[in-house]
Amino acid sequence: MTYCVGMLLDAGLVFLSDSRTNAGVDQISTFRKVTVFERPGERVMVLLTAGNLAISQSVVNVLHEHENEPGVSIWGAKNMFEASLSVGDALREVHRRDADALKEHHIEFNASLIFGGQIAGEPPRLFCIYAAGNFIEATADTPYFQIGESKYGKPILDRVISRSTSLAQGAKCALISMDSTIRSNLSVGVPLDLLSIKTDELKVHSHVNIDENHAYFRMIRTRWSESLRHAFHEIPDPEWMRRS
Amino acid sequence: MTYCVGMLLDAGLVFLSDSRTNAGVDQISTFRKVTVFERPGERVMVLLTAGNLAISQSVVNVLHEHENEPGVSIWGAKNMFEASLSVGDALREVHRRDADALKEHHIEFNASLIFGGQIAGEPPRLFCIYAAGNFIEATADTPYFQIGESKYGKPILDRVISRSTSLAQGAKCALISMDSTIRSNLSVGVPLDLLSIKTDELKVHSHVNIDENHAYFRMIRTRWSESLRHAFHEIPDPEWMRRS
Repeated sequence: MTYCVGMLLDAGLVFLSDSRTNAGVDQISTFRKVTVFERPGERVMVLLTAGNLAISQSVVNVLHEHENEPGVSIWGAKNMFEASLSVGDALREVHRRDADALKEHHIEFNASLIFGGQIAGEPPRLFCIYAAGNFIEATADTPYFQIGESKYGKPILDRVISRSTSLAQGAKCALISMDSTIRSNLSVGVPLDLLSIKTDELKVHSHVNIDENHAYFRMIRTRWSESLRHAFHEIPDPEWMRRS
Repeated sequence: MTYCVGMLLDAGLVFLSDSRTNAGVDQISTFRKVTVFERPGERVMVLLTAGNLAISQSVVNVLHEHENEPGVSIWGAKNMFEASLSVGDALREVHRRDADALKEHHIEFNASLIFGGQIAGEPPRLFCIYAAGNFIEATADTPYFQIGESKYGKPILDRVISRSTSLAQGAKCALISMDSTIRSNLSVGVPLDLLSIKTDELKVHSHVNIDENHAYFRMIRTRWSESLRHAFHEIPDPEWMRRS
């Protein structure tokens, strides 16, 4: 399993992904799930993948293979909607090639992608692309998408993130959301890729690799746990049980 | 869907369940998922159910039907292990009756139960019973079980609950865990049943019904959100992004 989150803020985009891949519990590996497509000043696009690793990697390979084909390549897409169509088409190409064989082995064609970025001429946009190659786009009401093990880390996103959240706060919130997921689910783990894009910069603003020794993430892990315990103890106990 | 949590603490047992049942999103109803079996001074047992409501209700009915049959009735069980065997057998009886018919309609035989309590002569015990009628028991390392939509509300339990937690704190933590679940998942909703058993009292210690107007739960909902936002803002932003 995996956990990835992408946020569309007025200030730009924030992406965070873990890097754990498992087939059962005895085959756990580290694979990066982030791919960056960047031509500074013209376009910057980020792809996060969850689900079957063979499918995810194939999608990225198909996108690279098509990079010189006009009308198909995401490098030639006029806007992020067209680029998302290209990613969806790449996923469908992998489906045509692999789905029947997977079915014979009772393996579901399981993939979900977060794809976001900015192409000169339009504001940053964020998409969630399903296994069928169709997709939805983030709006003002829903400024984030999650894929993979999304439930543990959703409550803090729901409480904190809005379009006016800064990039730095978005990154902090994504890391707290990831911390809650890692604590409760063995299939999600460091190292993490944390990447941000600032509106109208048309390049990667920051890209940090976070392992277990990363000072800021360690501080978050400690402080957030302490804060939660403190907040918990600050709330009065139910009076009908106080003497229990 | 549903969300239930049961805790085994040194001080006793805490049980919390929601009451929402849905078949799709257009058929949402309120059904209690808590059944109490109590003979004060001798035994007190609580059953929480998640999954297919028809199965859960059948299990409770089978247990009531068998109440005068020696060797089968949970009222005659010498200890909580024997009582759990009876609950598992009731589930298997429902499986024998319904599973084939459900299969013809492509409906999974889906049920999970939390069952806990105390029978005179032994300490309180807590079990999680699966659809197959088999079960596991809570130990010092794992003092709680969740069934249903368990992921949203797991991080706070993992951070706060240990065997030395008081009944009142256990109840408070269960309510915070439920709040996180209700906020992030439409299929879980009030009213809630919150029930506690104090070690060696051999009766229900408290049983509170909590609806949306319940003052304590409203306070928790407001305060917890405020505390999380406050804790979030107290943590410094990542310095490499501070100017973002």
